[in-house]
Amino acid sequence: MPLKTGEEYVESIRSLNLKIYMFGERIENPVDHPILRPSLNSLKATYDLAQNPEYRDLATTKSPFTGERVNRFTHIHQSTEDLTNKIRMQRVLGQMTASCFQRCVGMDALNAVFSTTFDIDKAKGTPYHERFLTYLRYLQENDLVADGAMTDPKGDRGLPPHKQADPDMFVHVVERRADGIVVRGAKAHQTGASNSHEMIVMPTQTMTEADRDYAVAFAVPMDAEGVFMIVGRQSCDTRKLEDGTLDTGNPRFGGMEALIVFDDVFVPNDRIFMDGEVEFSGDLVERFAGYHRQSYGGCKTGVADVLIGAAALAADYSGVARASHVKDKLIEMVHLNETLWACGLACSFEGKATASGNYLVDLMLANVCKQNVTRFPYEIVRLASDIAGGLMVTAPSETDLNHPELGPIVKKYFQGVAGVPTEDRFKVLRFIENMSLGTGGVAYLTESLHGAGSPQAQRIMIGRQADLGAKKNLAKSVVGIDY
Amino acid sequence: MPLKTGEEYVESIRSLNLKIYMFGERIENPVDHPILRPSLNSLKATYDLAQNPEYRDLATTKSPFTGERVNRFTHIHQSTEDLTNKIRMQRVLGQMTASCFQRCVGMDALNAVFSTTFDIDKAKGTPYHERFLTYLRYLQENDLVADGAMTDPKGDRGLPPHKQADPDMFVHVVERRADGIVVRGAKAHQTGASNSHEMIVMPTQTMTEADRDYAVAFAVPMDAEGVFMIVGRQSCDTRKLEDGTLDTGNPRFGGMEALIVFDDVFVPNDRIFMDGEVEFSGDLVERFAGYHRQSYGGCKTGVADVLIGAAALAADYSGVARASHVKDKLIEMVHLNETLWACGLACSFEGKATASGNYLVDLMLANVCKQNVTRFPYEIVRLASDIAGGLMVTAPSETDLNHPELGPIVKKYFQGVAGVPTEDRFKVLRFIENMSLGTGGVAYLTESLHGAGSPQAQRIMIGRQADLGAKKNLAKSVVGIDY
Amino acid sequence: MPLKTGEEYVESIRSLNLKIYMFGERIENPVDHPILRPSLNSLKATYDLAQNPEYRDLATTKSPFTGERVNRFTHIHQSTEDLTNKIRMQRVLGQMTASCFQRCVGMDALNAVFSTTFDIDKAKGTPYHERFLTYLRYLQENDLVADGAMTDPKGDRGLPPHKQADPDMFVHVVERRADGIVVRGAKAHQTGASNSHEMIVMPTQTMTEADRDYAVAFAVPMDAEGVFMIVGRQSCDTRKLEDGTLDTGNPRFGGMEALIVFDDVFVPNDRIFMDGEVEFSGDLVERFAGYHRQSYGGCKTGVADVLIGAAALAADYSGVARASHVKDKLIEMVHLNETLWACGLACSFEGKATASGNYLVDLMLANVCKQNVTRFPYEIVRLASDIAGGLMVTAPSETDLNHPELGPIVKKYFQGVAGVPTEDRFKVLRFIENMSLGTGGVAYLTESLHGAGSPQAQRIMIGRQADLGAKKNLAKSVVGIDY
Amino acid sequence: MPLKTGEEYVESIRSLNLKIYMFGERIENPVDHPILRPSLNSLKATYDLAQNPEYRDLATTKSPFTGERVNRFTHIHQSTEDLTNKIRMQRVLGQMTASCFQRCVGMDALNAVFSTTFDIDKAKGTPYHERFLTYLRYLQENDLVADGAMTDPKGDRGLPPHKQADPDMFVHVVERRADGIVVRGAKAHQTGASNSHEMIVMPTQTMTEADRDYAVAFAVPMDAEGVFMIVGRQSCDTRKLEDGTLDTGNPRFGGMEALIVFDDVFVPNDRIFMDGEVEFSGDLVERFAGYHRQSYGGCKTGVADVLIGAAALAADYSGVARASHVKDKLIEMVHLNETLWACGLACSFEGKATASGNYLVDLMLANVCKQNVTRFPYEIVRLASDIAGGLMVTAPSETDLNHPELGPIVKKYFQGVAGVPTEDRFKVLRFIENMSLGTGGVAYLTESLHGAGSPQAQRIMIGRQADLGAKKNLAKSVVGIDY
Repeated sequence: MPLKTGEEYVESIRSLNLKIYMFGERIENPVDHPILRPSLNSLKATYDLAQNPEYRDLATTKSPFTGERVNRFTHIHQSTEDLTNKIRMQRVLGQMTASCFQRCVGMDALNAVFSTTFDIDKAKGTPYHERFLTYLRYLQENDLVADGAMTDPKGDRGLPPHKQADPDMFVHVVERRADGIVVRGAKAHQTGASNSHEMIVMPTQTMTEADRDYAVAFAVPMDAEGVFMIVGRQSCDTRKLEDGTLDTGNPRFGGMEALIVFDDVFVPNDRIFMDGEVEFSGDLVERFAGYHRQSYGGCKTGVADVLIGAAALAADYSGVARASHVKDKLIEMVHLNETLWACGLACSFEGKATASGNYLVDLMLANVCKQNVTRFPYEIVRLASDIAGGLMVTAPSETDLNHPELGPIVKKYFQGVAGVPTEDRFKVLRFIENMSLGTGGVAYLTESLHGAGSPQAQRIMIGRQADLGAKKNLAKSVVGIDY
Repeated sequence: MPLKTGEEYVESIRSLNLKIYMFGERIENPVDHPILRPSLNSLKATYDLAQNPEYRDLATTKSPFTGERVNRFTHIHQSTEDLTNKIRMQRVLGQMTASCFQRCVGMDALNAVFSTTFDIDKAKGTPYHERFLTYLRYLQENDLVADGAMTDPKGDRGLPPHKQADPDMFVHVVERRADGIVVRGAKAHQTGASNSHEMIVMPTQTMTEADRDYAVAFAVPMDAEGVFMIVGRQSCDTRKLEDGTLDTGNPRFGGMEALIVFDDVFVPNDRIFMDGEVEFSGDLVERFAGYHRQSYGGCKTGVADVLIGAAALAADYSGVARASHVKDKLIEMVHLNETLWACGLACSFEGKATASGNYLVDLMLANVCKQNVTRFPYEIVRLASDIAGGLMVTAPSETDLNHPELGPIVKKYFQGVAGVPTEDRFKVLRFIENMSLGTGGVAYLTESLHGAGSPQAQRIMIGRQADLGAKKNLAKSVVGIDY
Repeated sequence: MPLKTGEEYVESIRSLNLKIYMFGERIENPVDHPILRPSLNSLKATYDLAQNPEYRDLATTKSPFTGERVNRFTHIHQSTEDLTNKIRMQRVLGQMTASCFQRCVGMDALNAVFSTTFDIDKAKGTPYHERFLTYLRYLQENDLVADGAMTDPKGDRGLPPHKQADPDMFVHVVERRADGIVVRGAKAHQTGASNSHEMIVMPTQTMTEADRDYAVAFAVPMDAEGVFMIVGRQSCDTRKLEDGTLDTGNPRFGGMEALIVFDDVFVPNDRIFMDGEVEFSGDLVERFAGYHRQSYGGCKTGVADVLIGAAALAADYSGVARASHVKDKLIEMVHLNETLWACGLACSFEGKATASGNYLVDLMLANVCKQNVTRFPYEIVRLASDIAGGLMVTAPSETDLNHPELGPIVKKYFQGVAGVPTEDRFKVLRFIENMSLGTGGVAYLTESLHGAGSPQAQRIMIGRQADLGAKKNLAKSVVGIDY
Repeated sequence: MPLKTGEEYVESIRSLNLKIYMFGERIENPVDHPILRPSLNSLKATYDLAQNPEYRDLATTKSPFTGERVNRFTHIHQSTEDLTNKIRMQRVLGQMTASCFQRCVGMDALNAVFSTTFDIDKAKGTPYHERFLTYLRYLQENDLVADGAMTDPKGDRGLPPHKQADPDMFVHVVERRADGIVVRGAKAHQTGASNSHEMIVMPTQTMTEADRDYAVAFAVPMDAEGVFMIVGRQSCDTRKLEDGTLDTGNPRFGGMEALIVFDDVFVPNDRIFMDGEVEFSGDLVERFAGYHRQSYGGCKTGVADVLIGAAALAADYSGVARASHVKDKLIEMVHLNETLWACGLACSFEGKATASGNYLVDLMLANVCKQNVTRFPYEIVRLASDIAGGLMVTAPSETDLNHPELGPIVKKYFQGVAGVPTEDRFKVLRFIENMSLGTGGVAYLTESLHGAGSPQAQRIMIGRQADLGAKKNLAKSVVGIDY
């Protein structure tokens, strides 16, 4: 089966029976819904890229499991070259969409589950890895999007799953049958949920024995019986409902997040990849997080490329491009962004083969990468906003801009350098607004902070990987302490 | 005439014939418009505070010009105590509204025009200061809000006013009559324009001889013939049009900015405070900027107090308040905020009397204050967002929260610690969202960056005030260089 | 008795029988020792300033206890003006010496002991305050330097005094007699110890009942029986032993620290100001720390003025002064330094009277001040080093510069802009080296970090003063949570 | 000829007739001079490592030019693996010496001259590349150290070479003979000059036609007729002259810099690699700088590993290792250091083959790497100093520590946790002092700032590599601007 075109992807999503709620109503046709569609477009870009001859080797590769060329988003990394190609592809897609294109989380889940099921089976004699390979081939052959669902609502963060007042604050097995299990709970902040065919569910943290029923990993179709989702609001989401697209800042692309609810969902045995092996929950989380923290070194740098370009355009359009402080701020933005890129590259190049044969990023460097991602975008946005000027938050609406009487006034007074239409200036400033305060800011700022784990999660991992003992020994050797 | 109550203020604005346009339409009743009303409420808080016995000495004081107690926002500072009381009042109002309350710009304009007209008259024998005192008494006696309008659209930033392709890119005199002048142009990013009775117009930068017609300062009523305004969009502005207020984040208060257009507006002689005295344009700008950069050390610290409190609540509600990294982040937020406060206080305490008798802030420290304001709020927001967690950008809408079927699910899965209603958790997170990405972010982030002058403007002033020559002499003295 | 001249001060120190050890030997004549003398000179500057008519009101004031004009360093602050004059004086002395002038710690101790003895007496009926006033008058009338000795060696930081393996890790009472007490222990990192007539000893932390014998405050002459000191090394200390002064960087001024040992020292009753009142130990520490954290907002900004001047000279001398990035770095240095100054001023202006009548700084702002002092000097030094260029660490020695054959070569090749002698360029670069890496760096960097308490101590205090409860209530009020 | 052992290397340096001056005297036996020897030891470590079987593949490789295994420091990089092995080797040597081991500059010069001579020859038909290969084989076969000498004194930085008041401020050709050229001038800040057999001289900046005589590259033996050097002072250099080694902080290793003077030095034709090809001067500088900026991502991270280990030990020894803020500071140090490492790795992995066949690092990422190196070490040192406590700058001398009477007192009062000798605590703290303020600080701080080019040099390169035009096009594409 050939790779899907973008349009085929859209139609395949349309054909699903997704239960999506927003603003108190079920969305009957999510594919055409103006708030959801830009998010679908971002994901569609991952299919379009695979069709683009220029990016063939970046966006597709040959699967050792199907023997066919597959979309890289469904690929199991076979080398460090695969790992670096992953983030190169992500940077390109970030540059094209200035958005979260949502398919990474599934790719990262696939690779984490791949090696973890292998390890479980080896230790326990379970059949998870083989089941998973079957599932993987299904995804690859059908070129499907699988959401990787990890984050539970968690309730009281100070308590483990089994101590929560409500036992459903983490997804858990509520019934075990001969043919499968029944699960209940929810996954929060699920990026791209409404644009996915499938969902790979994983535990959200290291579990202990008392949380055995919560140590569960499995896959279900996104439109499985009992699954439904409630879409979260984003800053400026409803601008997409307005006439015109200028005020959205990013007229074609966007993101979305949803709460996915599992209302006693049946999972057949062949879709179960972990059930109670608590001692492997930590590895699964750590590996998924590692891959996903790497991802941010790719996509966010691509997104920032667009933002830097927009800031440079804004400077051109207002006539300040030659000011030394403006040039220096652009350089600083590039410097910070390339530092993130360097981290993404480094953790990829330093990847190593797991026991299962796929390649895992260097966990220290992947965590360092993400930790920087939780910081630098805020400074990059600050600098972009500095260059943009106050007009980025005070520009009148597109309606006013195009109004027969008001329009000429708006155009007259917000004209920048001669020759650049005010409309184009507004497009650029609205985009910077979008990235700083709007839907783009949700992805570029808040998601950079919390996606793939909040800052403290990376610090814990950095501390764990730091090997301070070895460093102490270096110091002892240099200063001459002999014990 | 007694000080106006908040309600009287609202009615006095209602009685004006303001020409306000938004989304392509004239707003017939701006006082009741859901997008504009929160902004009016913020300004109303300056009247309410003056009626509050607890804040009497902070919010009001005796005017040496009327002999009566006036609202401090119309006061000419008579001492450093007045200067510090100004920012104490601003911090309180920031704490109450978590918004820009918009009346500072007029207060700062009054004080800058006061001393500058005195200096012009002294040098030139003009009658500006006396005219201004008459106007001032009018404002004080009627307890009016005067917008301080300084920022011109500026067109191509690389060119002075008279070299712009369109001569109207800066407000200028187009006709001089026996009884007054006619002005044309616009002022951009005008905070609180729709909530003001009057407007004090000032040049936006140091002018030279060739820009003589642009060196003009005057006052007109906000509903003067030929004046109209086009409201700018803010992130999430239309959430205020929705049912419910939870999703606005800040249900009662807000801000707004507008482009004010001067379509050949007549200004009678007694309202003209500068006309062509280019050599004083720099002083006027510098003093206004000094006062206004001080202001940010007051209002923004008050706003941040609310944000810090919200972050602390968010930590309580999700059960992470005892984590050492959370406590440390709250301390850092407080530390940064109190540093801004210290700068605001210091430039006030170090104020000096001008030749005209009113008190001017220390310009070095006021610029240092504002320069820090262009930086720290971004880090404070980052830390607040860190503590808040991803839910601040993925929470479903209020409609979903209160929906008969969806509501219980939303409440179940987004319950935090036991005993705190999910609704209250959402209120706090929506507020943090508002301050980070929504209308509050416009004021707390972008306005902190560009209001009262963009960062580079402060750096130029810091450089000018630094007296590097004296510092070089200190170094020479210490190291023993004798020339 | 009139205020001492600088020379009289020097002779008064010479007349003491100080027991000072360094490099394994007792220093027979510390006043003339080349390593110690620059430190004495810095302290002498506090006497010289008091004799300087230009600084009379800053450096001296009338004591309410003697009725005479006293050196401000022995003054009990009677107003916020006194508090601000304190830091203005400190900034001037920092500008003159580019060093620690060491007399602040005694001034801060006097003011802390003043109010704390008052409080103890009030609560306990003890006679400490009256004793202290007698002692204070003695210091004021004789214009003496009292070292304020707080920091104990502390041993294992994880243990309280009474749990230490060695009971002497904190100064404590080892014998109580009818006429006084005998104390044992040591105080570490004592700045200016060798230049002081007297020493006021205070506990270093909040003590609990089990540490009663450690909750002791008293005064002894610096040459009391049983007191001796061992001088600590500073980076580049022995450059002061070399011929010439150029390589010292700061040819006349410097600092020093010592371990002061109390080898069973007798303290007569009238010199005891606390003995076992553990419940007041915290207040004493907190107040002393508050005053001393304020001090750093004065002295270090003065020191940085010299460093900024030196960086500006270095730029002039190498011909880069017009480069925009150099100008911007100087502005940033000024901005950071003035931020510290603003914090120092603010905590002074916001001071309040204590029950005893003297004025205490605002503790929140004083801690915020010091917290910034633990950060900004490192960035200021980095920027100064950036402007200075690599020559600041690679310049040949003064001996080479003045050598008959090598000298002309050194002068030829390290000539900067025409007309500036290479020797002067070296003087400036050696000074920047001194401030970055040498004795000046000890004071400007490490002491900024740890003097008056390490960074975490300030964070704890900021957390304690933050009143998060009030801030939470502000947030509740804004978002509409009613409990 | 086999690789030299460390001892053979030392003896080979001893056998040179180096003319080295310091403190006004010629150093007769530099190899045994206590100030120079630690620097020699650091360089010797590059020989020792090559003999160490554990590091064989890192420290040596097969040369395509000799067919023999050579020390990697003389190698021409044949692949990105070579580039990454280079920085892995540097990190190891940084970990072993906590110093600059000085041999990188020659390696980086070799690789830059290699490709540039190839390009010149191709464009001009000159014989430089072949000459260079002969020279390279000589270095590889004899396992020699070549200093890479680039930085001229520069005089007035605002003027090009030919406009300087003294024509010798940049190395230049003063005579051209049939058999070679005569050069005059000097190279400043030359690291490792006294430990090198050879010297490769390169122009320091892009030259224009008027500076033709300054566009010269060549090699001479370090003890060539007319070459001499004057050693620069380092902070705390003379501690190495004292008895004992504890106070040096780093008892075995160190660095040194010197001014190398060319007093009409003859260079035979076969040692000339550029003479007047001004249009290639920029490439040579850019490539050398690129390689050398990469180097800092290796060596400095290794040095910081030791510093982090020392800080962790200091925390252990004073009993604060379990404090959450201490753990967090160690994590931050690791995070910053690994970010530098990531940048070093990334620019290596992204290296590309030049026309000449050797591999050049990615210039954008190499400059980003170095730019971060100009920042993070200052913060790492600040954090290390924070953990170390004030004792790092107030500890008494080793003489006092070991003194029969003073020693027991010093040991008693500076005892930390039970069981750790005070001497060991001092060793660790002296090391942190060394890295912050002493000879180690010269290398870790000032050299990180200026070595391989000052910060602004990297910013210019980042700006040049940023391709803002492409980024603007990305923005136009996203927002829908079609021209």
